[in-house]
Amino acid sequence: MDEAGELRAAIEAIVGAEHVTTAESELERHGHDESWHETARPDLVVFPGSTEEVAAVVRACHARRVPMIPFGAGSSLEGNVAALTGGVSIDLTRMNRILSVRPEDLDATIEAGVTRRQLEERLREDGVFFSVDPGADATLGGMAATGASGTTAVRYGTMRENVLSLTVVTADGEIMRTRSRARKSSAGYDLTHLLIGSEGTLGVITELTVKLHPLPEATASAIVNFPTVRDAVEAATETIQMGLPVARVELADEVTMHAIAQRSELPVAERPTLFFDLHGSESGVQEHAAALADIVAAHGAEGYEWSTDPAECRRIWHARHQVYEATVALRPGCRGMPTDVCVPVSRLADCIEESRADLTASGVFAPIVGHVGDGNFHLTIVVDPNSDEEVAAARGLSERLVKRAIEMEGTCTGEHGVGIGKVKYLALEHDPETMAMMRRIKDAMDPLGLMNPGKVLSA
Amino acid sequence: MDEAGELRAAIEAIVGAEHVTTAESELERHGHDESWHETARPDLVVFPGSTEEVAAVVRACHARRVPMIPFGAGSSLEGNVAALTGGVSIDLTRMNRILSVRPEDLDATIEAGVTRRQLEERLREDGVFFSVDPGADATLGGMAATGASGTTAVRYGTMRENVLSLTVVTADGEIMRTRSRARKSSAGYDLTHLLIGSEGTLGVITELTVKLHPLPEATASAIVNFPTVRDAVEAATETIQMGLPVARVELADEVTMHAIAQRSELPVAERPTLFFDLHGSESGVQEHAAALADIVAAHGAEGYEWSTDPAECRRIWHARHQVYEATVALRPGCRGMPTDVCVPVSRLADCIEESRADLTASGVFAPIVGHVGDGNFHLTIVVDPNSDEEVAAARGLSERLVKRAIEMEGTCTGEHGVGIGKVKYLALEHDPETMAMMRRIKDAMDPLGLMNPGKVLSA
Repeated sequence: MDEAGELRAAIEAIVGAEHVTTAESELERHGHDESWHETARPDLVVFPGSTEEVAAVVRACHARRVPMIPFGAGSSLEGNVAALTGGVSIDLTRMNRILSVRPEDLDATIEAGVTRRQLEERLREDGVFFSVDPGADATLGGMAATGASGTTAVRYGTMRENVLSLTVVTADGEIMRTRSRARKSSAGYDLTHLLIGSEGTLGVITELTVKLHPLPEATASAIVNFPTVRDAVEAATETIQMGLPVARVELADEVTMHAIAQRSELPVAERPTLFFDLHGSESGVQEHAAALADIVAAHGAEGYEWSTDPAECRRIWHARHQVYEATVALRPGCRGMPTDVCVPVSRLADCIEESRADLTASGVFAPIVGHVGDGNFHLTIVVDPNSDEEVAAARGLSERLVKRAIEMEGTCTGEHGVGIGKVKYLALEHDPETMAMMRRIKDAMDPLGLMNPGKVLSA
Repeated sequence: MDEAGELRAAIEAIVGAEHVTTAESELERHGHDESWHETARPDLVVFPGSTEEVAAVVRACHARRVPMIPFGAGSSLEGNVAALTGGVSIDLTRMNRILSVRPEDLDATIEAGVTRRQLEERLREDGVFFSVDPGADATLGGMAATGASGTTAVRYGTMRENVLSLTVVTADGEIMRTRSRARKSSAGYDLTHLLIGSEGTLGVITELTVKLHPLPEATASAIVNFPTVRDAVEAATETIQMGLPVARVELADEVTMHAIAQRSELPVAERPTLFFDLHGSESGVQEHAAALADIVAAHGAEGYEWSTDPAECRRIWHARHQVYEATVALRPGCRGMPTDVCVPVSRLADCIEESRADLTASGVFAPIVGHVGDGNFHLTIVVDPNSDEEVAAARGLSERLVKRAIEMEGTCTGEHGVGIGKVKYLALEHDPETMAMMRRIKDAMDPLGLMNPGKVLSA
């Protein structure tokens, strides 16, 4: 038997032959995510059913010096799952059990393959919810690995603020739990946060204990149009500076609103827009809506309405969540190349305005959406992958944007992670000493460099 | 010149002779914190004035294989600053500059020696505040190093949720900044959180960029008495489970209230008590006070009043903050030996009740206070250090409490850190694999084991 065959046999002995595949379609699917980054196929895909099986698979790969790439829903956006040097894709989607939900402690323990919507549905019956909402129906393990966030981070935080504890399989196949279930702890080094955002390069996340929140008594959503993008951004910034506890405040420019108009049953104006969401008591929501009314009016907004009907609110957020697909669909045959910078909110209006001028000048099609309460926004660059000129212009725009954000004391990635797309920018953002320390951590936790090689740090 | 003299000369050349001392009183002061742990003196104390000076001092020590112990206000409670193997105490209190306050971004950058009260006073003029409040007037660097929290964590989080970025001098004297000033980032490994709670064992924190919050429009505080400690704890737990956004909810048992009564100008009843604090809009605070009224009434509370007068509120929280000193003072000549467990809130009432039964049975004097919204509480064990019998009984009680909390899926330390006091319990709380990973991190970041040796992990 050759080496590949021998590894396959070893893995089949762990998980059963029916949970191992080298089918072309599966290798293809596991070689890329939803981004424009080139596919890099793994040599084999395994679907383990438990943390112990993951550990045994990792030990089998580790013993043979074979790279491993953890895989969830494949909804990442920076090539985070591409198997750059082949190896074994560890697909965690069979591990989709919700192990326990404890409304009395406002926490839940789940396997890494549970998806956001699956968890949402299960929690509703207990009157609680999990807040992190990246739009895609990602797995919770993938969301933790990427340090994901999305529309609700402005109020409830990102994955970093919403994970209590992780079960992790280390690079050499040991199982460790990072932390107890206590709400607060100072008991040793914070391995939980070290794993969040490590993108499978330090270990495989197999279980999570996450924080839950009581469902708010009342919610209200509104789609508010502004004369200009700057007006919209300044209204959002002022909302944050005043400490108004909005649950969501999302920017969409006029082109994005055009894309939404093509898909949504909602009648939307094709103008610069903020989507707002408020959570609280009945009177609290009313009070915050009134305070917001003053802010948005001062920035030229008029003629919007608050919706408190749950079905209508769902339609509004469904429309917002479709933005990426809707925008890419505006140019059939083209691909999305989303950017992901985040800057201090006081710099946001300038950063967006300069970026809009840049994209106009460079002739790139790139509508803007943003989690503007956090200073995070995306250009959804849509490019014809067969046009070298377009691709080059898009890459240039993206690089200038990253540099602009870093100069404004921001980051090259607010929530999509480094993957392969941002590897080269990490050294622009961090000091050489900081980069060296990240490398030391990587070498300490994965001395053979087998975990998702080439991601976060160059291989 | 002997080795010690040679090191002293090297350090004097960096910071100036006037900022180096081997005076007995200073060695003594830097050899212990506010806890019962035995003093272990450093050989020398240095007071650097800048990050660059800290880096140069660290390089001088590193080259000579001399241990280093970062020192802030000395207000820690687990012997976190004791110089177990001698060496150089790096006192950061000269680095007390508030470098910039940016209300528009709700953040501030400060040197590590800035104290909590110093920052609070400076921020007031800008209508913002820093939320973490451990009671003591600790330095911000020390608070980050310990992973501190305190009374407001239930609403605003601990140091972990309130630090954006750190400037750190590594064990070999390099300067690294952990992260940008962006509100959100997925740009590489989370060195910020790795340093928070590392207690000087992975590097020296010299600067922090922290999150600020707008001052609430209205606040209200109340001291509410209950028939029993269980009633009080259950009222607090229910408050959390309902998602009522209290800014503080603090437990004090009847003996603690007796201690407070000795010191405070407030007329307080010597009964089990919750201290509440509400932050919000005028109407929001009123609404939450009304919701709380129902909860506490259902648990037997009566006859309390809400105070909205700022001076009165300050008196209430001043009384609460004096608890540790007031409790220790009840037994002149004795020392405090505070415990610090934290359990999931659904287990809190049981954990406290079992612990009270235990302390009664063991004859130890140990009033209880607690940040009960987070499941965190302290027995303030007060012992006669000259009575072997008392000390042994206190240690036994403390150890049983730790084991009880860990069995309830909690932690041996919610906020005081490991120091030397909890080193032996860390292996009870964490898997061997988790402990091994913490050791790997320590060895990667401080290969010579010079940074605060013997803390967090055994030397």
